[in-house]
Amino acid sequence: MLSSASSITPLTLIGFRRRGILFIVSAPSGAGKTTISGRALREISGLEMSVSCATRAPRPGEVDGRDYTFLDREEFERRLGRGEFAESAEVHGFLYGTPRLPIDRALGEGRDMLLDIDVQGARQMKDGYPADAVAVFVLPPSEAELERRLRTRGTDSEEVIRRRLERARAEMAEYRSYDYHLINRDVAESVRLLAAIVAAERVRISRLVAR
Amino acid sequence: MLSSASSITPLTLIGFRRRGILFIVSAPSGAGKTTISGRALREISGLEMSVSCATRAPRPGEVDGRDYTFLDREEFERRLGRGEFAESAEVHGFLYGTPRLPIDRALGEGRDMLLDIDVQGARQMKDGYPADAVAVFVLPPSEAELERRLRTRGTDSEEVIRRRLERARAEMAEYRSYDYHLINRDVAESVRLLAAIVAAERVRISRLVAR
Repeated sequence: MLSSASSITPLTLIGFRRRGILFIVSAPSGAGKTTISGRALREISGLEMSVSCATRAPRPGEVDGRDYTFLDREEFERRLGRGEFAESAEVHGFLYGTPRLPIDRALGEGRDMLLDIDVQGARQMKDGYPADAVAVFVLPPSEAELERRLRTRGTDSEEVIRRRLERARAEMAEYRSYDYHLINRDVAESVRLLAAIVAAERVRISRLVAR
Repeated sequence: MLSSASSITPLTLIGFRRRGILFIVSAPSGAGKTTISGRALREISGLEMSVSCATRAPRPGEVDGRDYTFLDREEFERRLGRGEFAESAEVHGFLYGTPRLPIDRALGEGRDMLLDIDVQGARQMKDGYPADAVAVFVLPPSEAELERRLRTRGTDSEEVIRRRLERARAEMAEYRSYDYHLINRDVAESVRLLAAIVAAERVRISRLVAR
């Protein structure tokens, strides 16, 4: 409950705490969301990364509990059945999910989290956390630039690139369910804009709750 | 009208224009809003000041059309009768008002305005521009600091200071109708936070409209 209006002073206003915020960074593939969220974690203070669970094997250099929590399919499905994931998806035959508990705990304690997630997952998270989630849609500066970025990865076949481009086009149509858009021309500039969004959302009056 | 979902590409998204934003900076007297909005106009690009009309005489150094548009009471009331003010108030026997036309024109053309206004005026503006107004409530860091600031102006009697403090307390109770709060510990820090709010609001997806 809030204090009664007559007792509101700057001191009691400062005395309010705020709920944590769940910042969702999402993008069509190739727009650069992973680079942005990695730098954001290092450069914006007070952001914690949400670590997803995955049933695929760790890739070289990936650390269990940092990049993903790697689970076998049986354990993943057990947790899924208990409702432990805020969102989950099957991609190329592997299961991925965002655990609910660390997020709920962080938001209640006023800590802010960053979640780097695909467009379908972002929509599930916005539905699950309508008041606490702030969704940022990262866009490539142009479709030509998106294609160039997908090609210069160099590892994918023409067919895979074509399917990715098609999927990216479909995903970009989802932008209306996001709160902010960020056109990724330059990573440093994008991280600065993300930092501004974080700073602004932290002083939103609707996030204040009485201690 | 927006383009149909299937034709959304980054290029058409960039091709959207956005409506202008009316940034309202408001505060109990003594919190420092005039200092902040003056510096914000110089340091944040793309903000124009909304110039109010007033029936009082210009003070030394004030320029007609820059600080206020100075009108006689008859002319003010004529404009008031024609509905030309988005908000107006009588303070110490003088009339003050915010002209509607320059704001409507700026918002429609995608230009952002800054309006430095008291708490009562801010509420009227939020009611008049529910989608386009972003209201920032500037607060002193503490009630003791507010009193100190009111006293060090040095020009007011104890009685005037006491009345200002009481009014400030009542005004601070209005914070719930604002979008953001800004605790003014240091002017440079406050202007940086206001710049972050401006940058974030400019990339809100809800402000996009098709060209």
